[in-house]
Amino acid sequence: MATIEEIPAVPPTDPGALSGRRARGLFRAGLRAHTAGWAAGYAQANLVAVPREVAYDLLLFAQRNPKAVPVLDVGDPGGVTTTLAPDADLRTDLPAYQVWRDGEPVDEITDATPHWRDDLVAFLVGCSFTFERGLLEAGVPVRHLEEGVNDPMYVTTVPCRPAGRLAGPLVVSMRPVPAPLVARAVQITARFPAVHGAPVHVGDPAALGISDLAVPDFGDAVTVGSDVPMFWACGVTVQAVVRASRLEFAITHSPGHMFVTDTPDATFQT
Amino acid sequence: MATIEEIPAVPPTDPGALSGRRARGLFRAGLRAHTAGWAAGYAQANLVAVPREVAYDLLLFAQRNPKAVPVLDVGDPGGVTTTLAPDADLRTDLPAYQVWRDGEPVDEITDATPHWRDDLVAFLVGCSFTFERGLLEAGVPVRHLEEGVNDPMYVTTVPCRPAGRLAGPLVVSMRPVPAPLVARAVQITARFPAVHGAPVHVGDPAALGISDLAVPDFGDAVTVGSDVPMFWACGVTVQAVVRASRLEFAITHSPGHMFVTDTPDATFQT
Repeated sequence: MATIEEIPAVPPTDPGALSGRRARGLFRAGLRAHTAGWAAGYAQANLVAVPREVAYDLLLFAQRNPKAVPVLDVGDPGGVTTTLAPDADLRTDLPAYQVWRDGEPVDEITDATPHWRDDLVAFLVGCSFTFERGLLEAGVPVRHLEEGVNDPMYVTTVPCRPAGRLAGPLVVSMRPVPAPLVARAVQITARFPAVHGAPVHVGDPAALGISDLAVPDFGDAVTVGSDVPMFWACGVTVQAVVRASRLEFAITHSPGHMFVTDTPDATFQT
Repeated sequence: MATIEEIPAVPPTDPGALSGRRARGLFRAGLRAHTAGWAAGYAQANLVAVPREVAYDLLLFAQRNPKAVPVLDVGDPGGVTTTLAPDADLRTDLPAYQVWRDGEPVDEITDATPHWRDDLVAFLVGCSFTFERGLLEAGVPVRHLEEGVNDPMYVTTVPCRPAGRLAGPLVVSMRPVPAPLVARAVQITARFPAVHGAPVHVGDPAALGISDLAVPDFGDAVTVGSDVPMFWACGVTVQAVVRASRLEFAITHSPGHMFVTDTPDATFQT
């Protein structure tokens, strides 16, 4: 088996069949791809690294908004490792990063090493990709997987509960589900509270301030048709908060380009 | 109806029938009693207030040890209120407090007002009293309620995962359950992850380093007989951590003398 260092950065023919470690190897080698459907069975996570002086406010924000920001792991200042994938390097093993200054994304990169700082605290936040295998196994279709795109995400008009200097709107991911399967989709995802859990909203996009499902704020549009749009709290809420709070510095994953862990999905099932 | 200020500090004949607000009124008036079985249907919480400079480590400790320290609310520095009971004053409305200096309990009081500081951050942590009504309704006996005493709590030899300067052993509460009802007790309590959830251990006290169930470290011994001892993570873990970490200052509730909220138990049921 090739070591991670030797893996060439070419797209795999079957990304769902990869291990988490193998997927990270491709990203470390420079491959850039959204991770929906990758490494089936392994949990995926949002990354946000903030200066130590903001870490308390972010942890408190997470405590106050657990559906949007379910924290899976928090590193030590300057640390680049995580219990979720012990051999991973958080600076290199994600497919794409955003660098934020004064609340604006100023750079999009595949290697965050030059930007990492000794005072950064890395938060890994649950991602709803983690429960999609459970949906599929229960017969609930996942449209963006069917269509081979990133999931659609929307900034809502629903405010999160602020914490210290952090405030901002809830961001949601959307999956259209046939009406007879809506209840099943609620039941399945409710079993995964650490990766956003049950939906925050079912139907009526307007009530969340979403005017057009065909124009997501992040990710790709998917076909809705006569299905019911179901909305789950999304870890990209943190990016919206970084922006709204004009945080002076942060490094995050790029939406949909997640950290693929070695931790089985089932670990987060209650 | 008497206002809270006018309530005399006499023990009620039926503490289970009180509202959370009424129970707090008695404690504010000076009554001292453990709260097992009080204000049925209302959640109870552990209190720990620590200096702002330690708050991040405590919040991180909670994230890393969610079964022992399920955080329900965190106040602002100096704040004495909580969303769990909007008209409550955290300095006066608990039946008994412990004041800690350099990791040792130096005072046990019914009014913490003279000791409160502007830099204290109050954490309210879920308490397993909250799921006891669910156990009773499902036909699972709760021995310490039958015997009219505080629940037995034990310091184990199981270390928690440290966070910053905080480390210490897991503390558990114990309920003896008849063997045919053990599975039901697991199922019921697993539905309440925010108040310690499923047991951390069932049977064999020795595996937790508990040499004699008849000698709890906190609370009262109860009759075990031929029942199976079931152990749930306990919020008193925080007191054990305050001690083991030799924290310079903290104010906590006294074990078993909880904060009675206005928040229904069912709020915490998943």
